[in-house]
Amino acid sequence: MQRIKNDHLSQMPSRYRAQLINSISGFKSASLIGTCDAENVRNLAIFSSVIHLGSNPAYIGFISRPDSVKRHTLNNIKRTQQFTINHVSEDFWQAAHQTSAKYLESECEFSQTGLNPQYIEGVLPPFVEESQLKYALKLTDIMSISHNNTYLVVGEVTDILCAEEAIKADGYIDIESLHTVTITGLDSYHRTQRLSRLTYATPSHPVSTLNLNGELADDS
Amino acid sequence: MQRIKNDHLSQMPSRYRAQLINSISGFKSASLIGTCDAENVRNLAIFSSVIHLGSNPAYIGFISRPDSVKRHTLNNIKRTQQFTINHVSEDFWQAAHQTSAKYLESECEFSQTGLNPQYIEGVLPPFVEESQLKYALKLTDIMSISHNNTYLVVGEVTDILCAEEAIKADGYIDIESLHTVTITGLDSYHRTQRLSRLTYATPSHPVSTLNLNGELADDS
Repeated sequence: MQRIKNDHLSQMPSRYRAQLINSISGFKSASLIGTCDAENVRNLAIFSSVIHLGSNPAYIGFISRPDSVKRHTLNNIKRTQQFTINHVSEDFWQAAHQTSAKYLESECEFSQTGLNPQYIEGVLPPFVEESQLKYALKLTDIMSISHNNTYLVVGEVTDILCAEEAIKADGYIDIESLHTVTITGLDSYHRTQRLSRLTYATPSHPVSTLNLNGELADDS
Repeated sequence: MQRIKNDHLSQMPSRYRAQLINSISGFKSASLIGTCDAENVRNLAIFSSVIHLGSNPAYIGFISRPDSVKRHTLNNIKRTQQFTINHVSEDFWQAAHQTSAKYLESECEFSQTGLNPQYIEGVLPPFVEESQLKYALKLTDIMSISHNNTYLVVGEVTDILCAEEAIKADGYIDIESLHTVTITGLDSYHRTQRLSRLTYATPSHPVSTLNLNGELADDS
């Protein structure tokens, strides 16, 4: 097993280091974030840093770099206080990746990639019509991570749109059945295959498998 | 497609809402975080919130709840300023899930679950011997997310241990070949199957597939 030390890391070519460090955090979510500016010009950008922060209230966050292509997203959220998060699926993962190209502010990622905007009453920014699980958020906070000039954007979920059959009896959503993909590193996309759901762990009992509805599986 | 509004969310039974909201952020990383206290008593806990924050310096973060079972992890990191992150793989995903049981501070998750601690020179907390990709971090910051009393723990990577054959020519690590798993919701585990790596996106060219080494694939 190879050991890579910190001083070795700092001497690596920056693109090699970026690939390496982007790989070690594990599997990542694949989401398109939809926003619009004050003139309703829409923007769409892929993010792999969407993360659960809490269920009550329902807080979801993502990491934004102010000096990257994703600044349109951050600026729009600051202006309108709203954004949408749309799961990327096997049906459009290449188009989703294409949104990371450095388009001009006047160029629309929807028309450039062939994805379709979708609007619902009460939500200003666009959803992605093709996405089978998507939700709207209102801005709660933009927290500066001063150590490397990034931001944790925190939003509260206001509306969820989801294919009904994917929502199971106990509230678990089978995102694998929606063909949501996952990302590794900077550019690798993966489908998944469920091993199992597991029971809530307690010190006195080894974990058992659950079926999709969150019930003890027949073989337990 | 079902629309779930915010006022519906707040009326849900809390466990149903927790399952639902934990599902919408997409696929999550599966990591065991190793720590020790001032007396070298070790602790191991599973987290699905490990996230990439930056490559130069190499910053990785995770979300901690102060009043959950994971407080041992946070307290230990405050004391020793170090922790390890270990990829969870298909070889030990059930044992990894079992670490989420509320063991007493005096009970060791390693002996309770059968996982083996591993130590290297210069790093106080334990690694998980069974893990094929693991790294040590020194504490950079603990940022309070005051809205829901959680914390973003930020660490700088000091040492990476990785099976050498998984590190590709351009620095990308093929974590799928290491059988690293991914999590959805609170309790579902998944293996993956690569769709492809893709080229860096530019406005003028549609994305093309890359091979594992980050080179243009033969069919491009």
